[in-house]
Amino acid sequence: MNGRRPHVLIIGAGFGGLTAARRLARAPVDVTLVDRRNHHIFQPLLYQVATAALSPADIARPIRSIMAPFKNVRVLLDQVVDVDKHARTARFASGRSERFDYLIVATGARHSYFGRDHWSDHAPGLKSIEDATEVRRKILLALEHAETETDEAARKALLTFVVIGGGPTGIEMAGAIAELARRSVSEEFRHITPHCSRVILVEAGPRLLPAFPDDLSAAAKVSLEELGVEVILGQAVTAIDEAALAVGATQIAAKTVVWAAGVQASSAAQWLQADRDPAGRVKVGQACDLLDAPGIYVVGDTAHYIGPDGRPLPGIAPVAKQQGRYVATRIINDLRGRYTGPFHYRHFGNLATIGRRRAVIDFGRLRITGLPAWLLWSVAHVYFLVGFRNRLAVGASLAWNYLTFARHARLITGEYQSSAAQQPAE
Amino acid sequence: MNGRRPHVLIIGAGFGGLTAARRLARAPVDVTLVDRRNHHIFQPLLYQVATAALSPADIARPIRSIMAPFKNVRVLLDQVVDVDKHARTARFASGRSERFDYLIVATGARHSYFGRDHWSDHAPGLKSIEDATEVRRKILLALEHAETETDEAARKALLTFVVIGGGPTGIEMAGAIAELARRSVSEEFRHITPHCSRVILVEAGPRLLPAFPDDLSAAAKVSLEELGVEVILGQAVTAIDEAALAVGATQIAAKTVVWAAGVQASSAAQWLQADRDPAGRVKVGQACDLLDAPGIYVVGDTAHYIGPDGRPLPGIAPVAKQQGRYVATRIINDLRGRYTGPFHYRHFGNLATIGRRRAVIDFGRLRITGLPAWLLWSVAHVYFLVGFRNRLAVGASLAWNYLTFARHARLITGEYQSSAAQQPAE
Repeated sequence: MNGRRPHVLIIGAGFGGLTAARRLARAPVDVTLVDRRNHHIFQPLLYQVATAALSPADIARPIRSIMAPFKNVRVLLDQVVDVDKHARTARFASGRSERFDYLIVATGARHSYFGRDHWSDHAPGLKSIEDATEVRRKILLALEHAETETDEAARKALLTFVVIGGGPTGIEMAGAIAELARRSVSEEFRHITPHCSRVILVEAGPRLLPAFPDDLSAAAKVSLEELGVEVILGQAVTAIDEAALAVGATQIAAKTVVWAAGVQASSAAQWLQADRDPAGRVKVGQACDLLDAPGIYVVGDTAHYIGPDGRPLPGIAPVAKQQGRYVATRIINDLRGRYTGPFHYRHFGNLATIGRRRAVIDFGRLRITGLPAWLLWSVAHVYFLVGFRNRLAVGASLAWNYLTFARHARLITGEYQSSAAQQPAE
Repeated sequence: MNGRRPHVLIIGAGFGGLTAARRLARAPVDVTLVDRRNHHIFQPLLYQVATAALSPADIARPIRSIMAPFKNVRVLLDQVVDVDKHARTARFASGRSERFDYLIVATGARHSYFGRDHWSDHAPGLKSIEDATEVRRKILLALEHAETETDEAARKALLTFVVIGGGPTGIEMAGAIAELARRSVSEEFRHITPHCSRVILVEAGPRLLPAFPDDLSAAAKVSLEELGVEVILGQAVTAIDEAALAVGATQIAAKTVVWAAGVQASSAAQWLQADRDPAGRVKVGQACDLLDAPGIYVVGDTAHYIGPDGRPLPGIAPVAKQQGRYVATRIINDLRGRYTGPFHYRHFGNLATIGRRRAVIDFGRLRITGLPAWLLWSVAHVYFLVGFRNRLAVGASLAWNYLTFARHARLITGEYQSSAAQQPAE
C-alpha cells in the first residue's frame, strides 16, 4: 500500500458502525465514518422520547463528539447512494466518492409495512428522532383535541391509541402510552379521566414477545393488562386509514396508530449486488463478509447472519455491537497477517420493559419479571448510554419521572394544526 | 350575571397571559386560556436552544401542567382568528367560538422584516421552539458542510455567521455562536480551527444595546470583540439572499444569517379594530384597556402603552408580566366594585449576556459588567424559569456547559440535506 495507511470506510454510526470505529480508533488505519445524521441515537430509549419522558438530546449524541478523541477517524455527514465493490469506491449524495480498502456496511433498518407503504402516513414507526417527535406530536394532539371534542364518536377515536406489533418496541410503547394517557396527564385535563383512554396492542402471532419463553410472554401480557392495555393476539391488521384500522374482522376507530411490526433493511443489498433475504438483509458469510468481495463486511440490522441454531440472528443492539467489534478486530488481524476465526454471537439475554416498574428479562435459565427486572433494565440502559453526560441526564430524568409521573418533554412542535380546520398562517 | 361566574378569556400563554391566568386562578371567575401551542416558552433562553446548549424541553413547559392546580382555568389549544368586541365573542381556527365578559389579549409579537418578508427564508428569527431548532440546524449544517468543502470561497461563506440586530437577543446570539463555532466544536472537526469562523454582528444604529447607557453599550462591544465577534455599527442591511447579504456598500458572503432586528405585533389590532402603531401594536389606555370596549385589555408585546417618559414601554418580559398581573387585579377589583388606578410599570433594570461569562446589567445608578453581571444573570434566569424541574435541569445544564464547554443538544433534525444535492429518499 505504498506507505499509505489502509482506509476503512464505515457507513452508518448506529451501534454496529460506532463500535467498529471505536475498535479501529487506535489501529494503524485511516477511518472514515459516514452517517446521514450528525447524531448517534440510543434506539432502545426512543419510545421514551415518543412518550415525552425524555428529550431527544437525552438519547442522542453528536457522532463528532464521540469520535473527537480519535485522530485517525474522520466523520462525514453524508448519505451513500451506491457502492462499486469491484472498484472499491462508495458514492455519496453530495457527489463525493470515497475509495476504500475495507468497507463496513452498518446502515441499519427502517420500518416495513409489508408492501403497504401508504400505511406509513397513518401509522408512523419508531426509528429516528424525527419519528419519535412525530409520534409524540400525534399522541399529545389527540389528547388536546379530545379535551374539546363534543361529538362522542370522534372523541372516542381521539382517545384510542393502537400499537401494532408485540415485540419489545411495541410492548414498551403500549405501556408508556397507557401511563401517559391514563395517568400522567389526567390531572391536567378537565374532560379526560384515566378511564377515558383506550390503549390497544395488536400482535398477529399467537403471543407477545415471540423471542422470549412462553411464561415471560404471559407475564408481559398480564403486566400490560394491569396498566390498562387491551392485548389482541392472533389477528392481523388488514387496513389502516386516517380514522380507523381493521384488525381481523373488527373495525377500530383510532386517530393514533403506532407501527412496531416489521423492519426492512437498508438498500445495502442493492448497492452491493448481494443476495438478500425477504427483509432485504444481505446474506453474509460466517465472518460477516461478502463471499465475492474480500474486505467488505455487513453488520447489524443490515446483515442476515445464520446463527448456530440455523436461524438468522435477531436485529438487536448486542448483535450489531458484537459484529462491529468482530469485523474491526478481523481487519486489524488481517493487516498483521493473523488469522481470525468466524464470528460467534454471545447472547446475554432478552429484555423488555413495560411501563414504569415492570419488565421481563430472559437470561436463559434465569427469568426475571416485575420490579426487580425493571430495576435491572434501568441500570443496564443508563449504563449503556453513550456519553457520560447523557447517562447522568437520563438517570436524573428517569428518576424524576418515576417519582413524579411527570412527562417533562411534552412539547407539540411543528406548525399548529386544528382538528377541524387548517387555519391561515398568522 | 344571573349566578353564572364571569368568564375571562385570555389569548396567549406567554409571560403576560400566564401571569394574568395565575392571578385569576383563585378568583371567583371562570378563566379560559387559549394558545396555539401547547407549551409556554421561556423566551430569554431561546438563544441557548438555537446554539445547542439547552434542549427545547429545558425551556418549555406544557401550559396544562402549569395550570393543572387551578380548577377554574380551562386550557385550550387553538388559534384566534377574529374577535367581535361588541358581541364579546372570539372565533377560533377550529371553528369554535367563545363568549367572554372580560378579554385579555396577550398574543405577543413575531419578527418583522420591515416589509421584506422574503428575507425570512434566509434569515430566520428567534421566537419559537421551531425557530430555535431551525437556527440550530442551519449553524450545525454549515459547520458540517464546511468540514468537507474544498472550494475556498464556498467554505468561507459556510463559516461566516451573521447576526442582524444589536439588541439583547442579537448580542446573546452572536456571543453564543462565537463560542459554539470557535471553541466548542473545533476539537471535533479536522479542518475547522477556532480561527476559521467569522461571526459578524450588524446594527443599523450608532451603538449596541440602544436601551442601555452608553458605557454599557461600549462594554458589550468590547466583550463581544474579545470573543472574536466583528461588530459593524451604523450600517443597515439592504439585501439578503441564500448566499450573501449587503451591509451598506459591502457584500458579505454568508450561508447562515440570523434575524434579531425587529418585531411586529400579532394581528390583534386588526381583530379589535383598534388604533395601532407602526409595529402593529394596539394603542391602549393607561389601564391597558381599549377606550371603546370596556373589559377588553391588551398586554405585553401586543400593546403600545405610553410610559411616564412619553415613550412606549419596551417589549420585554417584565412589562408583559406586570401588565398581566395588573389587568387581572383590575378585573378582580371590578367584580368587587372597587376602583383600580392606572398601570405603573416598575423598571428593575436591563440585562444582556454575552457568551459564557460576561454580561452587562443596568440597574439605573448601578451598572455591572463582566463576570459578576454574568453570575447575576444566571441566577436570575434560572430563578425565573417556570416550573421547578426546569430550574433544576437548566441550572445543571448551564453548570455542566460552563465546566466543559459542551453543547449537548447538538442535533440536526429534519430531513437530511446535502450541500451539493438533494438525494433520493432511501
